[in-house]
Amino acid sequence: MQTFLEHSKEASRVIATLDPKTKCDVLLAMADALEKSSERIIHENQNDLVEGEKNGLSAALMDRLLLNPKRIAEMAKAIREIAALKEPVGRVLEGWVVPSGLRIEKVSIPIGVVAIIYESRPNVTSDTAALCFKSGNACVLKGGKEAHHSNTIIATILQEVLEAYGLPKAIISLLPDASREGVAKLIKMDKYVDVIIPRGGEALIRYVSENATIPVVKHDKGVCHTFVDKDANLEQAIAIVLNAKCQRPSACNALETLLVHKAIASTFLPPMKEALDAAGAQMKGCEHTQALLHVSLASDEDYHTEHLRNALNIKIVADVDEAIAHIARYGSSHSEAILSENYTTAERFLNEVDAASVYVNASTRFTDGGEFGFGAEVGISTNKLHARGPMGINDLTTYKFKVYGKGQIRT
Amino acid sequence: MQTFLEHSKEASRVIATLDPKTKCDVLLAMADALEKSSERIIHENQNDLVEGEKNGLSAALMDRLLLNPKRIAEMAKAIREIAALKEPVGRVLEGWVVPSGLRIEKVSIPIGVVAIIYESRPNVTSDTAALCFKSGNACVLKGGKEAHHSNTIIATILQEVLEAYGLPKAIISLLPDASREGVAKLIKMDKYVDVIIPRGGEALIRYVSENATIPVVKHDKGVCHTFVDKDANLEQAIAIVLNAKCQRPSACNALETLLVHKAIASTFLPPMKEALDAAGAQMKGCEHTQALLHVSLASDEDYHTEHLRNALNIKIVADVDEAIAHIARYGSSHSEAILSENYTTAERFLNEVDAASVYVNASTRFTDGGEFGFGAEVGISTNKLHARGPMGINDLTTYKFKVYGKGQIRT
Repeated sequence: MQTFLEHSKEASRVIATLDPKTKCDVLLAMADALEKSSERIIHENQNDLVEGEKNGLSAALMDRLLLNPKRIAEMAKAIREIAALKEPVGRVLEGWVVPSGLRIEKVSIPIGVVAIIYESRPNVTSDTAALCFKSGNACVLKGGKEAHHSNTIIATILQEVLEAYGLPKAIISLLPDASREGVAKLIKMDKYVDVIIPRGGEALIRYVSENATIPVVKHDKGVCHTFVDKDANLEQAIAIVLNAKCQRPSACNALETLLVHKAIASTFLPPMKEALDAAGAQMKGCEHTQALLHVSLASDEDYHTEHLRNALNIKIVADVDEAIAHIARYGSSHSEAILSENYTTAERFLNEVDAASVYVNASTRFTDGGEFGFGAEVGISTNKLHARGPMGINDLTTYKFKVYGKGQIRT
Repeated sequence: MQTFLEHSKEASRVIATLDPKTKCDVLLAMADALEKSSERIIHENQNDLVEGEKNGLSAALMDRLLLNPKRIAEMAKAIREIAALKEPVGRVLEGWVVPSGLRIEKVSIPIGVVAIIYESRPNVTSDTAALCFKSGNACVLKGGKEAHHSNTIIATILQEVLEAYGLPKAIISLLPDASREGVAKLIKMDKYVDVIIPRGGEALIRYVSENATIPVVKHDKGVCHTFVDKDANLEQAIAIVLNAKCQRPSACNALETLLVHKAIASTFLPPMKEALDAAGAQMKGCEHTQALLHVSLASDEDYHTEHLRNALNIKIVADVDEAIAHIARYGSSHSEAILSENYTTAERFLNEVDAASVYVNASTRFTDGGEFGFGAEVGISTNKLHARGPMGINDLTTYKFKVYGKGQIRT
């Protein structure tokens, strides 16, 4: 593995300083190559589907695995969109002159070698490779073994384009040893890999976080809250809560616990429940909620749970302080919302709730790179450091200080 | 330790939203309190000095340990300077409106609980506590055991001020179990501690990096280079190289290997050596250097070495490419300089050398928070992510997205 990663590291130096025009050209050529190679891709994808069938994958997983001309065209389109993004490297983030006369610029640069661990959907292979390429990084990709043939042919096609442009293949590569042991080795290779992004189940993320010597950008769970304040526009609140829970219940930015100010609970909750019932949501509630609605009791564990399905907890709170305290205790610092027309209450919530994204009067479902205007999304980070919340392509860069002198020495 | 860190976490919520005026007042009161408590501090410091004497600490270490009224006044002055820094929390880093009409602001916020591991000098206790306080973080400090009494009295005095202002003592605390086992436990407490900053020897930093489940901001070694190009102003180059190596040879931003373009080597190196000899520097060189100067041969290991004393390697290279390749192989990505009047060569070096700070025509000794205009320095990070290079107080913050809606739901 060391030799393999040495090649990634060397390749990262080549891609780091490639000019923006060539990067665009290569990406567009990659998009074309994928479309032209539809038959090769579908052929290899068939092997994954046959094995998936044999291994009894669920219908949902089989669908995630499937590639057809339409999906391949979407992969190509995604690459073209990434090619069109504003150049992420070389942005002057800050610039100033110090008393010694040195002129200092803080400039964005690629991170180096980015390792990404992910599952099932083969389009992640081309998306991620294109995002890393555009941001000047070499990437080491470790997809799910169920998509092995599909990922391999996609990576091979991208590498063919790299070679046609005289670039090292190692700019984009699949981890050769995709076993558990391979991953265990990879996450200790801090000499070669600069950041590792695990995308997958909680167990994988925990395993990588606990064992990596490389910095990890986590995509952890989302236990998101919406607090309906006593000064909320209640009609609006019903629409927002419904959207936050039911529009896509399995998303990490979906609502898990609805917090309701006691002063409006009896007015708000019955029509809210009616709307949630109509959308097929399952509800549990605190004792005070039970006095108003026919729901079973929510346990402490329920408040800690990311349901990933159309289910939520309802808790009546005394005031914004209790709402903030509940979120501090049970929240995962992902996305939290207050619905209120009261300026001071909204400000307090925005400032005192510690989460990557805090909302006033909107659905938490907007926590998303696309909705935030980042173009392509790298993921949603639950880190506190480096990147927090929705990650755009700029989050695949770090920075250096360029210092321009005229002979200065330190005295 | 868990209960102790729970208190830190709770305290971090209080300090996170404290208004800037109160933070300033508390810091100024802390500065006054340290000065007024000079006698108490010196008394406790005596205990450390007596034990240090018993344990046979070197004169240099004993001096680092010593506190007297002048040094205590300097500690107070440092706190007053930190109090006067621009408020680091609540800076709007970016702001924009997305098509859905949501208004998004990316705003700086405190990190939370910051743990710092450091050695000997007791003033680090008050400096670090003040930096964390000003940036809205709770801190857990773990100083060297040789300064145990001094650190304890300093922390106690700062805590007395916190209590006088009705703030939780746990905003600033010393790790109660400062043993190796205590540190081993601390660095796994990712539920309570948000970042860990080890400042000390390579072994400590390696140990923390390899074992922590908490993100680490490293202060690693500096193997810094200066490349004298064929188009350099040679008189200026002599002054810069002399400064980079000899002004403070033990600093992490001091020069370790001088790279010289072969076209000017025979003109440049003899007077350069004369100047270095006069400053007491010890030199080794490559074979080509040996043809020009009377020096012993530098080994591969020498090129990897951070000397931390007045010693350097000299290597003659064919061109800027060889200089860049040498730095890629042996450099520690800390601080690298090119001395050249050639625009294109300087640009290539600035862009192709991967280091936190890259210089044209200046001494690498400027890599320093003060010289960069950051006011107080948190340290010099050798991380690639979060903070890179000289860290100012703003690097003790992270960010959140504040999202302002008017009823938006996702479709």
